[in-house]
Amino acid sequence: MSAGGEQAALARIERARTRRRAFRDAQITTAHGAGGKATHELIERLLVPELGGGAQLAALADAAVFGAGDALIAMTSDSFVVRPLRFPGGSIGELAVNGTVNDLAMAGAAPLALTLSLVLEEGLDSEVLRAEVAAAGAAARAAGIEIVGGDTKVVERGAADGMYVCTAGVGLVDPRAELSPGAARPGDRLLVSGPIAEHGIAVMLARGEFELGAAVESDTCSLWPAVAALLDACPRELRSLRDPTRGGLASALNELAQTSRTGMIVEEERVPLARAVGGACELLGIDPMYVACEGRLLAIVAPQAVDAALGALRSAGCAGAAEIGTVEADPAGMVLVATAFGSRRVLDMLVGDPLPRIC
Amino acid sequence: MSAGGEQAALARIERARTRRRAFRDAQITTAHGAGGKATHELIERLLVPELGGGAQLAALADAAVFGAGDALIAMTSDSFVVRPLRFPGGSIGELAVNGTVNDLAMAGAAPLALTLSLVLEEGLDSEVLRAEVAAAGAAARAAGIEIVGGDTKVVERGAADGMYVCTAGVGLVDPRAELSPGAARPGDRLLVSGPIAEHGIAVMLARGEFELGAAVESDTCSLWPAVAALLDACPRELRSLRDPTRGGLASALNELAQTSRTGMIVEEERVPLARAVGGACELLGIDPMYVACEGRLLAIVAPQAVDAALGALRSAGCAGAAEIGTVEADPAGMVLVATAFGSRRVLDMLVGDPLPRIC
Repeated sequence: MSAGGEQAALARIERARTRRRAFRDAQITTAHGAGGKATHELIERLLVPELGGGAQLAALADAAVFGAGDALIAMTSDSFVVRPLRFPGGSIGELAVNGTVNDLAMAGAAPLALTLSLVLEEGLDSEVLRAEVAAAGAAARAAGIEIVGGDTKVVERGAADGMYVCTAGVGLVDPRAELSPGAARPGDRLLVSGPIAEHGIAVMLARGEFELGAAVESDTCSLWPAVAALLDACPRELRSLRDPTRGGLASALNELAQTSRTGMIVEEERVPLARAVGGACELLGIDPMYVACEGRLLAIVAPQAVDAALGALRSAGCAGAAEIGTVEADPAGMVLVATAFGSRRVLDMLVGDPLPRIC
Repeated sequence: MSAGGEQAALARIERARTRRRAFRDAQITTAHGAGGKATHELIERLLVPELGGGAQLAALADAAVFGAGDALIAMTSDSFVVRPLRFPGGSIGELAVNGTVNDLAMAGAAPLALTLSLVLEEGLDSEVLRAEVAAAGAAARAAGIEIVGGDTKVVERGAADGMYVCTAGVGLVDPRAELSPGAARPGDRLLVSGPIAEHGIAVMLARGEFELGAAVESDTCSLWPAVAALLDACPRELRSLRDPTRGGLASALNELAQTSRTGMIVEEERVPLARAVGGACELLGIDPMYVACEGRLLAIVAPQAVDAALGALRSAGCAGAAEIGTVEADPAGMVLVATAFGSRRVLDMLVGDPLPRIC
């Protein structure tokens, strides 16, 4: 893209973004659940205004943080509707626990308590349920969070596919954490904790809709050990954390760029990507930057802390941690990808839903 | 029933209860979501053991209570799958917020923060969604709880009916509350805050499956004002609180009787019941003691506090509050109904699910 063309494209996207409109979609589509543009429009134009949006909601963080007595606690909730229920590297029960623990971890909160609410389809095999409940229990023990309660509802045959799992989590915010989605400053660096896109591709391949034999496993795991290591190593230099789930790394970067009003420049060849995942993405025609991870984090750190942060991540088991780019003043609110060939392209939020029901 | 026959029946039920068995149902049925016997078996024999059941889970309270820093907080979660989404007196959005606020209130906790997780069916009319989100927002403002976050997932057409709503709530436990599901002692009194069975019957009639013209409205509302009034009036004499939702007053009484190892004697003619609700129950062949309320509480109080407690409930808007029975030493762990004719019958937990999908 020429410099002039790029400028025009940036200005057009920026104009569209700042134009705040009513939610005009007549019906809900899968794109509204994909974590990209349509999800953001649903949240910003319908959910937040109709709920009477307080400051917490409007912040759109992975978890809300508020005081309870003298404690500062983080709270989050998620629904999981992944299909199939089991896939290489994980299953819905494990995913639900890790996803909730990770939303707390992104707020700098140590996992404390979790609830598990099940919507079960009449006729569900009890052993399938047992396996998922056991998987959730094992994941909770591994992550050091106590499952304190839950709820079970049963709907008729055909009214849910097998089971949906809704989780909520509460954590205690680490007093060293000074995290904010708007904290990025020009000069800061972008780090990821490991290769991207593995969860989404593992689930897609598990459906057997594609004739691909690639062996890809979900990356689902608790990220609290990685966050704890970062807080030990460089608490003051750690600006923002996100786990790039639905909408992938691209959507997480866009959210942080918009909130901080900075530009994020990603060097494409530095983004870690397993060969099998890259190959599957190419065959499926999907950019891995938009594919969900469920056990990776994106960290923005001050430049002097890059080595300490990478060392901390590796010591916490994130062998593939890498620096992938920088924060710049311009283009404010946008993400650019710099390719190995020297060109740059705008990496916008996810549009549509190429990979439905992956979490 | 003769005295000997009653004894034999009691002994038989008690034996069946204490015999702890594996969960043997091969498939999930609607009874597992009804809040009665099958739900308890699912929880006690499958969920708690497989989750690695800690003390909180095993207590099976409406909300878990734990320390977070210096604060004592309560946490709860629920899924709502009511059909239809709107019914006289309420709708799924309002029900979800009040249900969660009430679980916190039953733990003596003032509502603090709530999350709302939506599972939406592709094709859902956006105005239907907007109405429910607005209803949830209004209910939250009325109950004084802040909606701090949420999540949205979309499933394909046919994979959910319209929408399911999963909520989680956190509250701050009132330092005056000394509540426990096992605190009832012989001599204590049973109070309810108003007429029972209205929510369940309102939803059933709204489905139009029965040719009944009765005008019954759901009782859905926040119970925190009633609990706050009780804590003002008689904090030390307030033993246990339950909101008799799924499984109705009968199941709530059974849970408290079993946990406290006391006998609960309910005087049938003192249980408040609107004429239209009683008539509908008779025509449907359902005992109103098993029908869900969503805005009523059952309180167990020390005998000297009955007048103060009833006065507090009435001052908090519970005009129909009534004393309905007593706690006795025997039969331990059971509930008996004394009829106006002088007979007594065992009121066991709900078996099966006569009223599916009412919350």
